[in-house]
Amino acid sequence: MYYQGLINKYRAFLPVSDKTPVITLNEGNTPLIKAEKLAEKIGADFEIYLKFDGCNPTGSFKDRGMTLAVSKAKESGSGAIICASTGNTSASAAAYGAKAGLKTFVIVPDGLVAPSKLSQALMYGAEIISVQGSFDRAFDFVKQICEKYPITLVNSLNQNRIEGQKTGAFEIIEALDDAPDYHFVPVGNAGNMAAYWKGYKEFFDLNKSKKLPEMIGIQAKGCAPIVEGRIIENPDTLATAIRVGNPASWQSALKAKDESNGAIDCVSDEEIISAYKLIASSEGVFAEPSSASSVAGMIKLKNQIKSGSKVICVLTGNGLKDSDSALKFANSKIKKCPANIDEILKVMDI
Amino acid sequence: MYYQGLINKYRAFLPVSDKTPVITLNEGNTPLIKAEKLAEKIGADFEIYLKFDGCNPTGSFKDRGMTLAVSKAKESGSGAIICASTGNTSASAAAYGAKAGLKTFVIVPDGLVAPSKLSQALMYGAEIISVQGSFDRAFDFVKQICEKYPITLVNSLNQNRIEGQKTGAFEIIEALDDAPDYHFVPVGNAGNMAAYWKGYKEFFDLNKSKKLPEMIGIQAKGCAPIVEGRIIENPDTLATAIRVGNPASWQSALKAKDESNGAIDCVSDEEIISAYKLIASSEGVFAEPSSASSVAGMIKLKNQIKSGSKVICVLTGNGLKDSDSALKFANSKIKKCPANIDEILKVMDI
Repeated sequence: MYYQGLINKYRAFLPVSDKTPVITLNEGNTPLIKAEKLAEKIGADFEIYLKFDGCNPTGSFKDRGMTLAVSKAKESGSGAIICASTGNTSASAAAYGAKAGLKTFVIVPDGLVAPSKLSQALMYGAEIISVQGSFDRAFDFVKQICEKYPITLVNSLNQNRIEGQKTGAFEIIEALDDAPDYHFVPVGNAGNMAAYWKGYKEFFDLNKSKKLPEMIGIQAKGCAPIVEGRIIENPDTLATAIRVGNPASWQSALKAKDESNGAIDCVSDEEIISAYKLIASSEGVFAEPSSASSVAGMIKLKNQIKSGSKVICVLTGNGLKDSDSALKFANSKIKKCPANIDEILKVMDI
Repeated sequence: MYYQGLINKYRAFLPVSDKTPVITLNEGNTPLIKAEKLAEKIGADFEIYLKFDGCNPTGSFKDRGMTLAVSKAKESGSGAIICASTGNTSASAAAYGAKAGLKTFVIVPDGLVAPSKLSQALMYGAEIISVQGSFDRAFDFVKQICEKYPITLVNSLNQNRIEGQKTGAFEIIEALDDAPDYHFVPVGNAGNMAAYWKGYKEFFDLNKSKKLPEMIGIQAKGCAPIVEGRIIENPDTLATAIRVGNPASWQSALKAKDESNGAIDCVSDEEIISAYKLIASSEGVFAEPSSASSVAGMIKLKNQIKSGSKVICVLTGNGLKDSDSALKFANSKIKKCPANIDEILKVMDI
């Protein structure tokens, strides 16, 4: 049988039964790219692998959790799904909602979200309602609605999201024939760090790997609640996908760090952009700026990484989601030239 | 061994040897999505499968050919690669050029290309040179340069591109355990239609499939040179990725049509946009408008498709490449609402 999404592939490890309808866009199964030039450029004496989850159907890792959350919503007879989100979660929810034939509601804070960020959700046909107030206020409304009506919350409070996301670890173990030594992951709501750790532990317990990685979560310096040990009221970072002042999975991320003997650290916006540019120009991989925080963290901590080890950096989202940043920080510029072969050769410098 | 791109997987069927350096971003291996709701909505009594090549690393099917073209350029000792392109080809060339450590030159006609279309190539660090004159003029310069210098042309005249692209057919045969009955594909430069047909024939000859599909190429009505049998001087369609007035693989596409007892037809921009919206809202699949021409063609010709047959529609590019169109043609709109639970419920209509 051909690859038909992560529920069908990892059925034995997920909370599904024969009765669960499988709502899938064939998510997962994303590239693991060995980054030899990157390693050379930063002078690393270890192996770096980029797990490019931006190749998922809606362009982010959220699809891993959403396939399960929406399949379970459908199984439970839910009439609709709902989330408060301004980015990747809304896109993923809207796509799987459409595939399932479930109405998808997205509540966003009025005036705080550029329509371009919602273009995917609008294209998939989600009902997007913009409400005055903060993001937290919008999220409160979502929770109230789910208490009263048969509508399933698909924000990351939904544990099925975490269950689906843990399959990223399964794929890495299968690719490397073992777990890596270090696993770097961007930390916003922190659910992905918790999910990966859960996945690594489960396959380790089943003897599918011989070791467990150190889990290293990376926040943005302007929004590093876990690093600073306090809620950040006014987050300030261009890494919008990890701009979360009070992470939902805070405690689970700390647990992953402690159990794995790992770390949670932070990097500046400059370090994020530098990594964002470096992976594009040296590896041909175009990820969202937020995604590059994992690589920026790895570069920051490279002297603490043991020689010869295998290091994963998760790239959570596709760079195409934010072409404004690409134009702003691009590695090259367009050069104008008269229509004359000699002039062109001069510009080409060959 | 884990999936490491289409050269490693299909080595026996591609013009590579042990000496060929493999430049890969783990392209290929893209989702084949069964579109049951779409079939129901259009009243089809056949099975529809969407081959979503927008999940490739740079967001289009071009990566399939580029991995081979750039690997062969590297093997031949070429110092750089070059193309004339305003879209998906430039993005793919720049990414694989970066990965290979080869300089990538992109020649574009000055004033005719929006910088946003080039954001990927700029991010990957390509040298983009904008030259006065038409696209054809730019392409002439590219060919002149390749005659004089050890620089490899990676436009679709490069036959390695076609060789790489044929692997899409291999993947479909492996997924369905046979070839489909019909294969719909957007036709711009027409190389992809020729490539798929080559792939289907090769696996058929090796007894890996029991049949061959009818190949059905779809052009845009405002730019249908093959349908009309004449070069189109001033193409007029919003499907930019297939806006090619004088296709490079014209004759190969006609051959694929004739040999397969297929067809080459065209659809209007309205039909393209309608299909573009329909696959997003019914299947959760967000493709470029140009990609949706394959689905629009299938809808146009649905009464000629035999009951019970299996039909492929190739979706060549990711919808994220063109978020302007998504906002313009979206299936829903953002609704404003006061911050009051009853008002929100009223807007939700539950």
